[in-house]
Amino acid sequence: MEQSLSYDNRIDSESSEQVVNPWEVSAKDGGKIDYDKLIDRFGCKRLDESLIDRVERLTGRQPHKFLRRGVFFAHRDFNEILDAYESGERFYLYTGRGPSSEALHLGHLIPFMFTKYLQEAFKVPLVIQLTDDEKFMWKNLTVEESERLARENARDIIACGFDVTKTFIFSDFDHVGGAFYKNMVKVSKCVTLNKAKGIFGFSGEDHIGKLSFPAVQAAPSFPSSFPHLFPGMDKLRCLIPCAIDQDPYFRMTRDVAPRLGYSKPALIESSFFPALQAKNGKMSASDPNSAIYVTDTAKDIKNKINKAKSGGHQFSGVQRQLGADLEKDIPFKYLSVFLEDDSELELIRKQYGEKEGIMQTGDVKKRVTEVLTEIVERHRRARAAVTDEMVEAFMAVRPLPSMFE
Amino acid sequence: MEQSLSYDNRIDSESSEQVVNPWEVSAKDGGKIDYDKLIDRFGCKRLDESLIDRVERLTGRQPHKFLRRGVFFAHRDFNEILDAYESGERFYLYTGRGPSSEALHLGHLIPFMFTKYLQEAFKVPLVIQLTDDEKFMWKNLTVEESERLARENARDIIACGFDVTKTFIFSDFDHVGGAFYKNMVKVSKCVTLNKAKGIFGFSGEDHIGKLSFPAVQAAPSFPSSFPHLFPGMDKLRCLIPCAIDQDPYFRMTRDVAPRLGYSKPALIESSFFPALQAKNGKMSASDPNSAIYVTDTAKDIKNKINKAKSGGHQFSGVQRQLGADLEKDIPFKYLSVFLEDDSELELIRKQYGEKEGIMQTGDVKKRVTEVLTEIVERHRRARAAVTDEMVEAFMAVRPLPSMFE
Repeated sequence: MEQSLSYDNRIDSESSEQVVNPWEVSAKDGGKIDYDKLIDRFGCKRLDESLIDRVERLTGRQPHKFLRRGVFFAHRDFNEILDAYESGERFYLYTGRGPSSEALHLGHLIPFMFTKYLQEAFKVPLVIQLTDDEKFMWKNLTVEESERLARENARDIIACGFDVTKTFIFSDFDHVGGAFYKNMVKVSKCVTLNKAKGIFGFSGEDHIGKLSFPAVQAAPSFPSSFPHLFPGMDKLRCLIPCAIDQDPYFRMTRDVAPRLGYSKPALIESSFFPALQAKNGKMSASDPNSAIYVTDTAKDIKNKINKAKSGGHQFSGVQRQLGADLEKDIPFKYLSVFLEDDSELELIRKQYGEKEGIMQTGDVKKRVTEVLTEIVERHRRARAAVTDEMVEAFMAVRPLPSMFE
Repeated sequence: MEQSLSYDNRIDSESSEQVVNPWEVSAKDGGKIDYDKLIDRFGCKRLDESLIDRVERLTGRQPHKFLRRGVFFAHRDFNEILDAYESGERFYLYTGRGPSSEALHLGHLIPFMFTKYLQEAFKVPLVIQLTDDEKFMWKNLTVEESERLARENARDIIACGFDVTKTFIFSDFDHVGGAFYKNMVKVSKCVTLNKAKGIFGFSGEDHIGKLSFPAVQAAPSFPSSFPHLFPGMDKLRCLIPCAIDQDPYFRMTRDVAPRLGYSKPALIESSFFPALQAKNGKMSASDPNSAIYVTDTAKDIKNKINKAKSGGHQFSGVQRQLGADLEKDIPFKYLSVFLEDDSELELIRKQYGEKEGIMQTGDVKKRVTEVLTEIVERHRRARAAVTDEMVEAFMAVRPLPSMFE
């Protein structure tokens, strides 16, 4: 699972057709991702206002800004999860990460921040799958390096503040086996090669590990994969927060679920996180200037934001006269994702984006630098406080007695 | 792994070309399997007299009758295993069974009888893989039924007399995970879909579980799949006794091994065990009259052997004048596999197969009925003595301190 909201190769692309799958995201003709088209093609649903209002009513708290701002914008059966929750039924959360890099960037944190909110708001257990096997299969990594990255990334994930009494983090290399493996095999049996090719676009030159992998990502969708967590709770519904490029995996999973006598997992899906620059042509995934990393210093962040693509105008008179093109303004996009205060965001939208506004590009960049620096500093402190013992505690195979409290 | 020497659909076939792979064995035009052609096509080697003599020298005991009689007739690198053994190096044995049926038949016992001999003669550890996952994927069985059959078959295997201090039996559903799963994934990464299609003949309508499975069967070939057995012994060579229809799995495994820094497993391969009848056209796999089962009574065995296809002549005068066609004589084939005494076998070959011999079809059928009844009775007694505790003891994940003694 790579639900990082990563923006590698995502916005600008030389290909003329929009491509979105778990391994590649590129827009048509170097333009923007057409999310409406994506929802149509995938067959998932838009997360509308009425659903968000319902979340607020059911949880008794303000919906997370990622809901309010449309970062998470699509879903499958999220309404059914809310129906079930309203009638007193329980569910669990499943999210994950493909541990491909040492340092996470902010886009990587988005699904975890959101999942933490869901865990707190609904008081539900959470399983986090670290697909070290996937990264081994797709990237040029050794098994040992993939495992090490999984543990390193676990630290970052724990640093997001998950409740150890409700959270089970596991790496595939450690955990696959037993009940989990049984579900992998059950899923595999239901998917033909032609179907997998159709869903994932595999070719004859792809290795069979890739063909095997979708079942690994499907298995955590079923409570019976975790007998130490959910004994006798085979009907427990699962909700998966993820970026929409993961949809193919769970389309397959949902297709297969009824044939196995299982509930379909519900999904709540986010859009992609934009890159700092939007050059013409392909971006380099290894370009450290395209993203803010959680290891960046305040100075790094300042420099990167200063170089970020802006929708504003260089001369203050022109900027005041025309307002900034917020659709093209990366600093404003970052603010709209990370600034907590809705009213401040609205003020900036007007004073920077509309005519006769008083804010200049520099003002917005200064504000987003502050916001991101604070997030990164807070994360760095939290991560430094994560001990080996905490990692062990999260990854221990154990029951979670208070997981619904 | 289904190395049962099963004869389902194997000798008679309506297809005009010889087909041999782990799931299907059928001869050309309903004739015999051309083993020379098979060896050529697969690229394995004939097990010749000089190798068998060498086994006798190295082990200080008479080679097993399955070696003397050519039941095990082909190999890969068995000579290298003997080289290594001669120079004081160690190896381990890996065999297995796809637990598809409740009751084993005699053909199923052949690889285990032979493996027990190898274990005793070379004083080496043995791992036995029960591919309950494979049977789930290929047959119309539930996971629970596959697991139950695995445990039932484990009883039959244990009844063959394996040394619990040197033998680890495991089911894939129980054991896959950890180090084992890592090797599965490593193997998968080295095999393209095109390659797997070439080796196994998969089509687009096959499910992806089938694509995943070869890695499961490959993994036990590498000592690192069993850290509780072979810690720090990554260079330990593996020898696999199996029927030759399993060769594609291990061709793939051997192809992949050097790229993983592993030794190629060596193989010692048997021919197929013939069916009691050789009808024109396809045989039914579910026909209980085509095989002797370990659950058959003495009376069942007598009846089945009486109905078995004979190469002899009905009238005693004609039989004496011409001798029997031993190539078509199933009772004689069974004797040549199961009769311990070489000189008695040679006597029967002459007195029944040559002109002017004194033996009639009925004599040979009587003798083979005795031999098989004794084997089946002995097996039944041994199986009844296998307790649940013994099954647990074999299947416990544990070191084997005296495994090379």
